[in-house]
Parts: sequence; structure tokens; C-alpha cells
Amino acid sequence: MRYSSNFAKTLKNAPADAETTNARLLQQAGFVDQLMAGVYSYLPLGLRVLRKIENIVREEMNTLGANEVLMPILHPKAIWEATGAWNNVDVLFKLQSRTGNEYAIGQSEEEVVTPLVMQRAQSYKQYPLAVYQIHWKYRDELRAKSGIMRGREFFMKDMYSFHTTQEDFERFYQNAKEAYLRIFSRLGLTAKVTEASGGNFSEKISYEFEVLTDAGEDVVYYCDACDFCVEDEIAKQKPGDTCPRCSKDVLHEAKAAEVGNVFDLGKKYGKDFDLSYTDEQGEKQYPIMGCYGIGISRVMGVIVEKYNDEKGMMWPKSVAPFAVHLVSIVGKNVDGTVAATAERLYDDLVVVGVEVLWDDREDVSAGAKFADADLIGIPLRLVVSEKTLAESEVEWKERSASEASRVSLAEIIEKVRSFQL
Amino acid sequence: MRYSSNFAKTLKNAPADAETTNARLLQQAGFVDQLMAGVYSYLPLGLRVLRKIENIVREEMNTLGANEVLMPILHPKAIWEATGAWNNVDVLFKLQSRTGNEYAIGQSEEEVVTPLVMQRAQSYKQYPLAVYQIHWKYRDELRAKSGIMRGREFFMKDMYSFHTTQEDFERFYQNAKEAYLRIFSRLGLTAKVTEASGGNFSEKISYEFEVLTDAGEDVVYYCDACDFCVEDEIAKQKPGDTCPRCSKDVLHEAKAAEVGNVFDLGKKYGKDFDLSYTDEQGEKQYPIMGCYGIGISRVMGVIVEKYNDEKGMMWPKSVAPFAVHLVSIVGKNVDGTVAATAERLYDDLVVVGVEVLWDDREDVSAGAKFADADLIGIPLRLVVSEKTLAESEVEWKERSASEASRVSLAEIIEKVRSFQL
Repeated sequence: MRYSSNFAKTLKNAPADAETTNARLLQQAGFVDQLMAGVYSYLPLGLRVLRKIENIVREEMNTLGANEVLMPILHPKAIWEATGAWNNVDVLFKLQSRTGNEYAIGQSEEEVVTPLVMQRAQSYKQYPLAVYQIHWKYRDELRAKSGIMRGREFFMKDMYSFHTTQEDFERFYQNAKEAYLRIFSRLGLTAKVTEASGGNFSEKISYEFEVLTDAGEDVVYYCDACDFCVEDEIAKQKPGDTCPRCSKDVLHEAKAAEVGNVFDLGKKYGKDFDLSYTDEQGEKQYPIMGCYGIGISRVMGVIVEKYNDEKGMMWPKSVAPFAVHLVSIVGKNVDGTVAATAERLYDDLVVVGVEVLWDDREDVSAGAKFADADLIGIPLRLVVSEKTLAESEVEWKERSASEASRVSLAEIIEKVRSFQL
Repeated sequence: MRYSSNFAKTLKNAPADAETTNARLLQQAGFVDQLMAGVYSYLPLGLRVLRKIENIVREEMNTLGANEVLMPILHPKAIWEATGAWNNVDVLFKLQSRTGNEYAIGQSEEEVVTPLVMQRAQSYKQYPLAVYQIHWKYRDELRAKSGIMRGREFFMKDMYSFHTTQEDFERFYQNAKEAYLRIFSRLGLTAKVTEASGGNFSEKISYEFEVLTDAGEDVVYYCDACDFCVEDEIAKQKPGDTCPRCSKDVLHEAKAAEVGNVFDLGKKYGKDFDLSYTDEQGEKQYPIMGCYGIGISRVMGVIVEKYNDEKGMMWPKSVAPFAVHLVSIVGKNVDGTVAATAERLYDDLVVVGVEVLWDDREDVSAGAKFADADLIGIPLRLVVSEKTLAESEVEWKERSASEASRVSLAEIIEKVRSFQL
């Protein structure tokens, strides 16, 4: 993409009401725009990041063998009454049509997925099965002050699994947990599997995937010597207590952001809708269900919270909006060689499949371009100027490195491709 | 995809309330599921079609040079009041939060895109520009009985362009029109550029892209000798009148479905929000805006209306959920060669990038599998059975052809690749 063609360039200043690092940097860099508290537009650079996170999640869900679907956002009241949630879930947005029908706006999809699947899975032979979607969800939050980490409108992957035995659910949960840890690792995040309460969904203990960050809204107690982690609300220990799992260290307290969760829904939803399957003995049975979420827009905010410095964002390669930020500095170059070389390099990189953001502006100073590149945070910056061309070279500067180096024009394509791997 | 792993298989019967061909076939074939009138879940096969249409539209919008963004669905009341639409648009869904704030659910995005763009485009040097999104939209329809062709919830591409002169808008409109005709052609549809009224958006004449089909809700008068087409509501002619453009034929009347539209918004939205740019003379000016829609979920319904026979759907190659429907008929094959050959063929096709739906079920008759393949409507069916393997062959049957033929196993991969082109 030529940066000149991007209508949403960096802003001089972040909006004054940006209270968190992710809100400040994402808005200033032109990745998102706040329409109202907790509701954002995704601009060209931000949308690319969102899609990359989405695709990593999708790949791992497909590897798990789950079917991708897309369920509605607009729901009839009846399905929310069937589960008791119409009156019990205070974050549920409700509305009325001009014909007097009442609807909910989806904040989770158990009420849709249970009838959808159960009408098609009436024999034990069809189990286990899992479906997922990646879609927008809504919560009537009292406050929404954490940038894209807590939205009234947010982007989620939600998967639902259906089983005939508790053992089979546990087996699938283990696979899903491994998939989740792979996802977070690919996204550059270390997530702790944390015991938590089941919230609205379940009376049972659930698991949350928590990333330690001061921008988070949860508090966890965790052990450094093993993987024990518990949410403060349900902890039987306090900070400083010996770890109940390994006894090798004491528990530490930290703020954390929930990036994923797993709920054991038991037989609640089959029973609520009286939707059952027939087992091997011909008996009617309710399925055991699990539900597995990942907050994709929230994850994008958490990545910014974990990967930034005083100059801006520092995207991991897996989710960076582009792989290369190419900067051409035309300056007083009168024969056009700087622009022509940059354009050829841009074309050559694109041809071999490298995603390049080319800052081709000619009315912006080198300093401003470098500041924008640092703010936007693409992993690799390449600079073409009269100075570098005098040596038939390109300047190579990784966002995470303090020093720049030089690479010859002859070798640059190959070096970029190796860097990407 | 192995069909055995798809939880949403074909249904014995279409739902009794399916009033249109697209609703009947898409539901029976397991492409969509109706949650309530005008609101559908997209199941694995249907979601693949929706994404293919979306990607064709995206490619052409990117070729036009438009920036892709994603704007919110949940809107604050204030922006809809600013344009007068809060009280004037009867299909606008409205809701209230528990804190007493009022919101609209997006049915179009002029109210969001105008401030979003104008805050960033304050100099004439930044014009022209265009942004688009592909997202879900909502209309509080009194009736929704046309399957996915008229949804209360529907998937749309909406583009907005910003110009400093009427001439520049006209120039861009011509480019957009060409892009639209390319899109519909790639989707297998012939769309007529039709004069229509501007609806809620504009006092001016607008253009709609109409596909002739009895399932449509519009009526148009068109000429067979030239490309003249006008919506009945604004026509100065009646059916049988001489074509006012070419005088070579009389006008015919037909029902049609609107698959796209273009509105000349003039300066309305800049004025409503008092958001302007500075021209070359340093004067404050309001931009001239255009808006360009394509109903992606509706297009999917229209394609079904145009491409079906008594056995089921017949997808154009460009949007078919899979390129090949592979059927293995194990029957009494005891040595496993049928299943093994089908699996190898499946793997070999996938490796060379062919999308294959493999009906690998072993407890379903050949007749039932063939009926499912006809209903699902993938362009090419390949059958592996003991009979074909006795000749080292595969049965080749195109969905649009009445006869099947045979292709040797040695040549099948190459022949499928050629068929795809």
C-alpha cells in the first residue's frame, strides 16, 4: 500500500480522552477511530491487524476440526427467555421493532447455536461435534474505558462443542486448550490458564486465559515455578501463600487481561430448549456442551499494551499490518532516482509476496516519516535516499533494534524474505 | 472438506415456510438456517459462498483505489439526529442502554463515515478519496419473505466517495459503474443500470443495478435493443412505448432484484455535520459525496434464483462453495480400494489447490449421494466406485450437463485443473 493513498494517516496528537496505551497509540497511529466509548471503527492499518489475528484463530479452530458458521447478531426474544437470560443478563442489549417484536443483540450465542445444532444432531452417531464463528458481539457495559480491550461492540471467536459424555468433553477441552496456547503463542502473548468463576454461563469452575498486564481489569495470583494461576475472586489462597500446586514458590499478585475463556456448560442448554439426541440404547439424552471464547479485538489491544515503547507500537511479525515499512526520502533528488528505486523495490517485494507499506509522500520530512514509522510499528523499516543509493544500498532498521545497518540493493529482496520467516 | 465432518448436511425437506426458491434450496441444502423471518445463520457451505462473493467485491473495490475500513454497527443517537434520519427513517432500529443512552443499529453508514473521513481530509489536496466496508446491516422491515434476498439483517458492501467537484464525482461514478458491471459479470449475473429514485438518501436521481428475476420486488421497464432501463416508479414511459434512448424497440416490463445502487449525495452530509475542507483559495467548502452499495447476501439469493433446476442449485464456478464434489461409492467393496482411491484423489486435488467436498459417508446410498450433490450444486461431480476403478477411471459429471463421461485416473488431476480455469 502506498501510504499516500491511506486516508487515515497518523494524527499529530492522540485524542485527549484516550486513557489507555492501546487507545492512545492505536488512534494516534490511524489504526482505529472511536465513535463513542467502547465502539470503534477499524481503519485500513487496524483492519489488517484484526484480520491477521482472526486468521490465526481460524486456522487453529479448523485444525481442531470445528465447523465455521456465522450466526445472527439480531436475536428473537423467545430464545433468550427459554434460557432465563432475557431478565438475568444485565449486559444484554434489547430493542423493539416497529411491529412490536422484541429482540436481543447477541452477547453470546448459546441461545442460537443450541437449536441450530441440536435440530441436526439427533443421533449419538453425530457426536462429538464443534462449531465456531468469528463475529461481532455486544455488551451493555456501564463503563468502557480500556480502549479496544473492553468494547460495547467487540470482535470474538466463539466455539461451542457438543458431547455425549463428560470424558469426551474433557478430552476435547484438552485439545482446545492446546490450540489456545498455540494461538496466543503465535500472537506473541503468554497466556496463563487461570481458574475462574463461571459467570452467567455456568455454575461450574471455568478457565480463563489471562495475559499479565497493568492494563487488564482482572487480578490473578500466580506461581512462577509452575503454571498455577487463579483469579482473586475465587482464590482460596492469598498473595504470599505457598503455591498449592508445586509448593516451590509463593503466589504473586498481578493485574491481567482475559484474552480467552472456556466454560463447561453441562446439560443446561439442551435442557432449557428440551433438545436431545437418542443414545445407543434408544434413550433420549441431553448433550454436554462446552463454550470457548477468544476476544479478537481485545487481543489486538493487549498486543499493543505488551509491545510498545515511548515511540509507538512494535507489532509481532505474525500480526503486523505490513511486513515492511519502506521509506523513500526524495529530498533534493532531482533526477528521480530515489523515487524510481523505491518504486521498483516496492514492486519487487510485492511480487514475491511481501506486504509493504511504502511511505511515498514527497511533502513530508524524513524526520516525520521516521516518527510515523516508529509509531505505526511495522517490524522492519527500509530507507531509500540519495545517501543510500550512492552506495547502491538500502538502510535496514528493525523496529526492535536501536541501530540501523545497510544492505546492498542486490541482496535486499532475499534478506527481507529471510527476515520474514 | 469431508462431508461426514459437516454438521449441517442436507435436510429431507425444506422448511414449510420457505416461500421463495432461494430460501427453499439454501435451507434444504444446508447453506443457511432461518433464525427468524429475515435473519439467517450461514452454515459451512453457505458461508463459503458468502465469502467468495465478498472477496470478488473486495478485489474490485481495491482496484478502484478505495480504502477498506470496518465501521461500527452500534451508533450513538446524536449522529442520526444531525442528519434528520433519527425521526425520518422508519426502518432504523433503535435501542436504549441501561444507562439511558439511545443508539441506532446501522442501516447505512453516511452518519459514521462523514465525520470519520472529514476529520482527516481538511485540505483539497487529499481529494478525491473513497472508503468502503463489507459488513452487516439492519433494517426494521415490516415484512421479510424473500429468503436471504430481503433481510432484517443483511451483508453489504458500502462505499463512500468524497470529491471537490461534480465532474470528479461523475468521473469516479463511471469507474465505479464499470467495477460494478465487472463484479456482477464475475458473479454470473447480468445487471441492468436502472434509473431510480434516491430514496432516503438523496433528492436526486440515483442508479440501481437490477437483475431480472421473478423473485425480485422491483418492476423495471427495459429495452432489448439498448441498455435503457428505468424503475416503474419514476418512469415517464409505460410498457410498449418506444425506447426513449434508441427508438429501436419497445419497452418490456419485468420483475427485478436490486443488487447494487449508487446515490449522488451532493453536499448534504458535509453540511449536516458542518464538516468542510479548505479549497485552493483558502475557502471553506463542503465535499460532494457519492454512496455505492452492493447487497452481498442478497446477491447470493439472486444467484440461486437464476441458477437452479428441479434437482437443486447450480453455482457458477466463481462462487461455488467447492470446485469439485467427490463421491465415493463403497457399496460391497471389501478390499478398501474405493475408499483408498477416493482419499488419494481428494488429497492430490487439495495439494494442487483444488477445493474439494468429499462425500465420504459409508452409510448412505449412491442415489442419496447423487441427489445431495445435485441439490448442493457444485459445478463438477466426480464419482469413484468399484465399477469406475475396474477401468482405472473416475466418472465425470458437470452439474449443468445431462450426461456423465469417464476420465482415466492418470489424467484426472490435469483435467480438473483445466476445468477450473
